[in-house]
Amino acid sequence: MERKITPVIMAGGTGKRLWPVSRDGLPKQFLPLLAGERSTYQETLLRVADAALFTPPIVITNAEYRFFAEQQAVDVGAKATVLLEPVRRDSALAIATSTVFAYARDPRALILALAADNAVFDLDLFLQSCVEARDVAREHYVVACGIRPSEPNTSYGYIALGAAIDGTAGRAVQAFIEKPDAATAAAYLSAGYLWNSGSLMFSAEVMLGELSRHAPELRHAAQKAVAGAREDLGFVRLDASAYGAAPQISIDYALMEKTTRAAVVEGRFRWSDIGSWDAVWQTAAHDSMGNSAQGAVELLDASNCYVHSPDHLTTVVGAKDMIVVTTKDAVLVASRAKAEYVKELVQILEAQRRPEATQHRSVRRPWGYYDSVDNGPRFQVKRLVVKPGGTLSLQKHLHRSEHWVVVRGTAEVTIDTDVKVVRENESVYIPSGAIHRLANLGKIPLEIIEVQTGSYLGEDDIERFADVYNRVAMAV
Amino acid sequence: MERKITPVIMAGGTGKRLWPVSRDGLPKQFLPLLAGERSTYQETLLRVADAALFTPPIVITNAEYRFFAEQQAVDVGAKATVLLEPVRRDSALAIATSTVFAYARDPRALILALAADNAVFDLDLFLQSCVEARDVAREHYVVACGIRPSEPNTSYGYIALGAAIDGTAGRAVQAFIEKPDAATAAAYLSAGYLWNSGSLMFSAEVMLGELSRHAPELRHAAQKAVAGAREDLGFVRLDASAYGAAPQISIDYALMEKTTRAAVVEGRFRWSDIGSWDAVWQTAAHDSMGNSAQGAVELLDASNCYVHSPDHLTTVVGAKDMIVVTTKDAVLVASRAKAEYVKELVQILEAQRRPEATQHRSVRRPWGYYDSVDNGPRFQVKRLVVKPGGTLSLQKHLHRSEHWVVVRGTAEVTIDTDVKVVRENESVYIPSGAIHRLANLGKIPLEIIEVQTGSYLGEDDIERFADVYNRVAMAV
Repeated sequence: MERKITPVIMAGGTGKRLWPVSRDGLPKQFLPLLAGERSTYQETLLRVADAALFTPPIVITNAEYRFFAEQQAVDVGAKATVLLEPVRRDSALAIATSTVFAYARDPRALILALAADNAVFDLDLFLQSCVEARDVAREHYVVACGIRPSEPNTSYGYIALGAAIDGTAGRAVQAFIEKPDAATAAAYLSAGYLWNSGSLMFSAEVMLGELSRHAPELRHAAQKAVAGAREDLGFVRLDASAYGAAPQISIDYALMEKTTRAAVVEGRFRWSDIGSWDAVWQTAAHDSMGNSAQGAVELLDASNCYVHSPDHLTTVVGAKDMIVVTTKDAVLVASRAKAEYVKELVQILEAQRRPEATQHRSVRRPWGYYDSVDNGPRFQVKRLVVKPGGTLSLQKHLHRSEHWVVVRGTAEVTIDTDVKVVRENESVYIPSGAIHRLANLGKIPLEIIEVQTGSYLGEDDIERFADVYNRVAMAV
Repeated sequence: MERKITPVIMAGGTGKRLWPVSRDGLPKQFLPLLAGERSTYQETLLRVADAALFTPPIVITNAEYRFFAEQQAVDVGAKATVLLEPVRRDSALAIATSTVFAYARDPRALILALAADNAVFDLDLFLQSCVEARDVAREHYVVACGIRPSEPNTSYGYIALGAAIDGTAGRAVQAFIEKPDAATAAAYLSAGYLWNSGSLMFSAEVMLGELSRHAPELRHAAQKAVAGAREDLGFVRLDASAYGAAPQISIDYALMEKTTRAAVVEGRFRWSDIGSWDAVWQTAAHDSMGNSAQGAVELLDASNCYVHSPDHLTTVVGAKDMIVVTTKDAVLVASRAKAEYVKELVQILEAQRRPEATQHRSVRRPWGYYDSVDNGPRFQVKRLVVKPGGTLSLQKHLHRSEHWVVVRGTAEVTIDTDVKVVRENESVYIPSGAIHRLANLGKIPLEIIEVQTGSYLGEDDIERFADVYNRVAMAV
């Protein structure tokens, strides 16, 4: 029987260039950016779900995203092992660490490392390239997947092809090449270069050997991060000091540009890295004017525009080649030609410490989510939505009182020693200083309007006494 | 002593082309669109506030806007008589009716009819042109105010000048000319034509005579509308059937293009009709890139853009010559060259019965305002802000219960026969069917978070039993 491939899905990115939909607090790989309701992370999980070809996946992501990674995997039926990065360190350490982890479970592991935020449009062709890449990887290569360019894209890296590898569909890599300008990109197309899609197929053994040769500090850090890992609610928390001490570098720079074992197979599937709003526009369906619109959108005399408006009415008049993305608390209007600048914009907003730069108005929690719907100098109004079975931590606030009005479902509310059931159209008052807990014991989501009043309303005015999600020491 | 001028301020327009800030529910003349906190209506009132030159003004507006017209006049110290139009009928009937009304008070009245939504940037020059126009009006002319064009604007009508009128600064009008195309506008500039600013100076007697001659049906309707008027809380409600039966036509078409008594004086002040977002951009201050931004706005590589964002963060990247206007519930992105199309856009939205087409999320009431901050299938959350001394009507709802949480100030709440004081951080429950009233007896605004629950949450589920603003029969 053929050896199965172990998918390693890298899901730790922040996706700044798709702001304001993608934010640090909930980045693009966990969002349904394209047609349909699934995130690109979920689509990636489903792409490697064929148990005849793949083992269950290893997911590596930032610790902040653990509940998204777990819940979204469960929702598509994937049995993922989730490794948690304590800090961000780019793809080289993520791959090294996942490889060390997989090797410890099976020294003969064959790994396919994939980004969680790409789009692939032809599953069969994708799987065919996986099989081809596996055959090349068996020859002790680290195998990139190149994509035949459909246009001279300047947002992608390119791969120049070397000699054929006998008995396989692979070629040696002559060179990995940085993002070109438009003229150079056109020349690369003529020369038959491929887009570098960023995915890699390799045996754990070969990867560890190549890391020892070209990036020993990464292999060392990865081994310490795995050796020092601890289990937390089923997650694997990688060792923070080992992880934090490692260099922040991509696998291309750290290894692929140095190794003599780089190979490439051509993926004939349509692919996008969904790296900017312009890339989203390119992959989306268009109307006869070249517009792509999601949500409540009215266009008048607009052409080649991308409009994304999930929350409220967005109108576009007489615009050409524009990106318009509106959310409840932030709006982006950008020319498509300058879509890459959005990353710089977000960095400016971060430097100004604007909360919209990194946090959504609607904040996901393991028990559900809350949305801040109104606020003033001494009050704040939130809508809390608690999943069936969800339970907020046992907590108290020093500076604020809370009025809860149940507008859907049934709540179990604990206030100090008192436990009561609060039903739709009933309310309850939590004075400041009271130890309280909210739980949804019902079968439908529980929705509560929470009116906070007090002199200080920050999220960090919370003392946790118990939490089913192990968050007692944290503010989230 | 010189005879004083009676200003007639026409404030009934809907300002569709400045959507989504200006909406039918609260149109542009009542909004602070330009620098400063005053509306153009208030600026217009102040422009004619010199008691040495003007009598107190007559305001004519739609009945829906009566509380805006009154409160905003009071706020700038103007003692206006407010005539209420039961339906919209354009400028000819508004001028005819105001003239009939003014003539009844003083047959020698001298009237200056002004739109409430224009901007004038040099008060002294404006007043000088008023004095000049008065001298011409005394010679039995209806005197337009022409503005020396600063550019070949295609959004304005033009006036071709005729012979000088002896002993005055006025000229006869050779012709009133419709909005031209760009080439024609340039030719008009060379020919010395003036922009038609739309304001008119005339004696009531001359206007009534000219109306009898050229538009007798308008004079007749105006006389019936005034004869049948009734007083309501100090407003003059014009007779609805007489008003509704009259033709909807502008004063230019109805009279000025026909009369032989048309004259013009040149206003040397800078002026704008603020007729579109492009006009707003033109009158606004710009940065070195030609951008004008209000609110929380971040621009990156943008030029010649107008960005208006009073409520949340709006970002613009790499855009040129664009209008971006964001409100809590609707966003407009338009090329400046197509700014006039916004009127058409609003008509499309109206045909779709989208509430954002005509109503703001924040709704003004005589007692203050409310903002709809959240809603779901069986609930709605509003923030109510009640002015000191403000009192909501004594009312009941059949289909919804209400939870009120006071977050600022002190409320007097009546529920059936019970009257109680509710303070900050206290709440009260109004069951469906209970007769209730909310009042602010304090000295600071009262703010309440209202959580409505029930099977039907429309504004029209209200039965009024008493109202200090005489709204018992109405839903507002």
